[in-house]
Amino acid sequence: MEGLRYSVADKLAVAELLDELGVDYIEGGWPGAIPSDTEFFARAADELNFKHAKLVAFGMTRRAASTAAEDPGFQALLDSRAPVLCLVAKSDMRHVHQALRTTPEENLAMITDSVRTGREQDRQVFIDCEHFFDGFRHDPVYATLVVKTALEAGAEAVVLCDTNGGRIPSDITAAITDLRARLAADLPPERIRLGMHAQNDTGCAVANTIAAVEAGVMHVQGTANGYGERPGNANLFTVIANLETKLGMKVLPDGGMEQLTRVSHAIAEIANMAPDEHAPYTGHAAFAHKAGIHASAIKADPALYNHIEPERVGNDMRILVTEMAGRASVELKGRELGIDLAGDKDALDRITKRVKELESKGWSFEAADASFELLVRDEVEGGLPRPFTLDTYRVIVDHDPNGATVAEATVRVYIHGEHGEADEHRISTAQGNGPVNALDAALRSALAERHPRLAELTLSDFKVRILAGSTGTDAVTRVLISMSDGEAEWTTVGVAPNLIEASWNALADGLAYGLNRR
Amino acid sequence: MEGLRYSVADKLAVAELLDELGVDYIEGGWPGAIPSDTEFFARAADELNFKHAKLVAFGMTRRAASTAAEDPGFQALLDSRAPVLCLVAKSDMRHVHQALRTTPEENLAMITDSVRTGREQDRQVFIDCEHFFDGFRHDPVYATLVVKTALEAGAEAVVLCDTNGGRIPSDITAAITDLRARLAADLPPERIRLGMHAQNDTGCAVANTIAAVEAGVMHVQGTANGYGERPGNANLFTVIANLETKLGMKVLPDGGMEQLTRVSHAIAEIANMAPDEHAPYTGHAAFAHKAGIHASAIKADPALYNHIEPERVGNDMRILVTEMAGRASVELKGRELGIDLAGDKDALDRITKRVKELESKGWSFEAADASFELLVRDEVEGGLPRPFTLDTYRVIVDHDPNGATVAEATVRVYIHGEHGEADEHRISTAQGNGPVNALDAALRSALAERHPRLAELTLSDFKVRILAGSTGTDAVTRVLISMSDGEAEWTTVGVAPNLIEASWNALADGLAYGLNRR
Repeated sequence: MEGLRYSVADKLAVAELLDELGVDYIEGGWPGAIPSDTEFFARAADELNFKHAKLVAFGMTRRAASTAAEDPGFQALLDSRAPVLCLVAKSDMRHVHQALRTTPEENLAMITDSVRTGREQDRQVFIDCEHFFDGFRHDPVYATLVVKTALEAGAEAVVLCDTNGGRIPSDITAAITDLRARLAADLPPERIRLGMHAQNDTGCAVANTIAAVEAGVMHVQGTANGYGERPGNANLFTVIANLETKLGMKVLPDGGMEQLTRVSHAIAEIANMAPDEHAPYTGHAAFAHKAGIHASAIKADPALYNHIEPERVGNDMRILVTEMAGRASVELKGRELGIDLAGDKDALDRITKRVKELESKGWSFEAADASFELLVRDEVEGGLPRPFTLDTYRVIVDHDPNGATVAEATVRVYIHGEHGEADEHRISTAQGNGPVNALDAALRSALAERHPRLAELTLSDFKVRILAGSTGTDAVTRVLISMSDGEAEWTTVGVAPNLIEASWNALADGLAYGLNRR
Repeated sequence: MEGLRYSVADKLAVAELLDELGVDYIEGGWPGAIPSDTEFFARAADELNFKHAKLVAFGMTRRAASTAAEDPGFQALLDSRAPVLCLVAKSDMRHVHQALRTTPEENLAMITDSVRTGREQDRQVFIDCEHFFDGFRHDPVYATLVVKTALEAGAEAVVLCDTNGGRIPSDITAAITDLRARLAADLPPERIRLGMHAQNDTGCAVANTIAAVEAGVMHVQGTANGYGERPGNANLFTVIANLETKLGMKVLPDGGMEQLTRVSHAIAEIANMAPDEHAPYTGHAAFAHKAGIHASAIKADPALYNHIEPERVGNDMRILVTEMAGRASVELKGRELGIDLAGDKDALDRITKRVKELESKGWSFEAADASFELLVRDEVEGGLPRPFTLDTYRVIVDHDPNGATVAEATVRVYIHGEHGEADEHRISTAQGNGPVNALDAALRSALAERHPRLAELTLSDFKVRILAGSTGTDAVTRVLISMSDGEAEWTTVGVAPNLIEASWNALADGLAYGLNRR
């Protein structure tokens, strides 16, 4: 996918996560063609011990006018030590001529030779029929012959690829039904083992995959979170959840389904992409409801408002705090925090009023539960004890004539004691790689002696966003900071025209929240 | 959608964009229930002159044990002056009992009374059958009766809603086919006017909408870019493109299709969301190809690698510069810039080498074409003339005891003349809302006299992202800055551990590029 890049270590971690989920095959890359993929397979063979999955090496059928035994590219696949090969083959006559620049007969020979050679080397072999659906529409006789040839050569399954992603479900159903009828003339049913590979160029990759399964396909290819070129591939996690919960198929080993959300988010983090909030089943917003008009009904019977129980995929239902929602959702949200606001109407009104004021200025509590909890507790219980309050800070960033850049921060804080009273005034200076890092370091050094637990709190994410009415760098800035103490992760928000000030707000709240956990 | 909020002015702008696209109906909100929506309809009636669309007010059928004429909520819909009403009604017996808390008979009476009253007031009325597919599965006789009742009362169309989003296309096809057969017993074909409203909880919202059209629905509801609660609604732009290019239906007036990409991106900017790079048809990556193995074939015949001509939806094909792609894609990318690198192998090698070096450090040229062009021109032509070079800068952010925050920047630059030689040394100081804004202001004031055109260059976007190996605020930071001169927009990238330094890099390149345009 554009913008996504895995290191070899990343790919090893992703493979382990997919095995924990319980998928059958994990395609790890193209050994021989991409150096880092060659390294991945070498390390995978030594370091990975899959509980369930088999590792698959992707590659091409042997070159034209050669033999698989002599083709260096094909040999590199065998050298990868992967127990399974997935070989891309042409099934569209036009690509045979224009891309492969060979004859239809030689293309078939390349497939037969490659599958047989793989089998002789004791490998399972999948054949990916590239551009199958375009090819089948252009010349169904030849496309069918390609599939038949691969099956007769001993392919584990022949995968029908909508490589350009231009198909909608009714196309897929019609083409596969027609193909199966043509194959049935020459092959017994148990020999017709087909797979599906969908791209998302019509926004139908998941639906096309489901349609293919309903049309008799028994193998599907997808990618974690749908990551893939152009609009992406079929999102494997959505496909799995649909097959399990909508078609009642058993796809994963016991316990796998409950891992979907965790694995989806973990892989996103490895890819350094924000997990897609709005992903079906696994997204943070997948089962989020704006309280608003439905609040009372949702309280009465959540099943009427969720298409499945969120727990089935390891996700959960959330009630959003939004301008639209008002008191009802604040009350529900309070309940999530274990605070009964129904009993304290005044607090409920004060909190709702403050939330609306702050949200109108660009604060977003939807993404910052810790900030919301601090706000609620401030109103109902006089707040969590604040370990410190800010007096002043100064941040200096210097770029010298030699091009070196230094960031330095000086922070003055009042430190509070047991009973919340400020009993000490500290000043501390620190340098950092950047201004926020310097602020963080200065604040930590000021507090370290009185609050040794600070050392356990690490920043796990730092997001900056320019808000509406933006005229560029002078627009209102929203900073989201996520912190972890190894057990839990929490997110705080800060909003200000000044990026440093917004960062300070989120940073100070995040540390205060962390120090108050347990 | 979680995190999305439009102002009234935003909604007016979105409505105008949708009318330019040529949609038939624009649902503008819920007058009477949401104050800002009431204001929107009042202003829309006075300020908007649609070329094509009709404005729709969303609301509920009248309350139980009342009359539409007396129901204040229903009157507010009429007061909105919208020519069309879309009324949500219950079609699932369980919701009639548990959410509406009334009888099945009263629910039907509410629908009939509401539709008739709307028609008497000379409004078109759509009925949204909430939870239709769940209701039809639970009790098909009653769900059918609800649809029939609304049609007989004079509804323009009855919209079948997959409110919880739990359906896949085969469910939709089966349910609508069954429903139409049941309705055909009592209604002539021309009276059976149905619509579809899909949510994306199975990742099939677009496919479900297309399936519904194939099953005989003649009205579809979707949202711009699929924005909606939970995983969102059917992406209207994807649905339109599929209906036009895959089913050959004429959905938009002439010229509408070519507006899809522009309107999609414009609405995203109004919503202050980054346009979805990977959206089908309209995404920046929708027709992007990693050169890699396909490069030569793509050059020969792009039609074999794009499911439609990108121009049909106002998008275009792009060749990506990525680690994988190497020289072939750099050459193609150069061609996009009008630079023939095929003729200069040494430059091609130098550029490819530098791109790979920089990308390995976290630079991303995929998202920053202007930075890539500067890099290329540096290698082939001694570079674009640089209007200035940095000597030093210093940024100070002060938070005083009263809570006031000030950002001040001092910049020293060498200003270059016609022939590229540095002929002046300037120092300038400025304040700003934030550190980057102060830097921007100081740099502009230093250059203003020599480069008056700077005044035309505005920053349109400023994105900050923490890169892999992140340990929070000290991680490597990537800044993307987009600038516009009113004619074109370009994006530059800066990468550094220090947010300010990364911002400076992107800022300086962006201004240099802008001053060199024309």
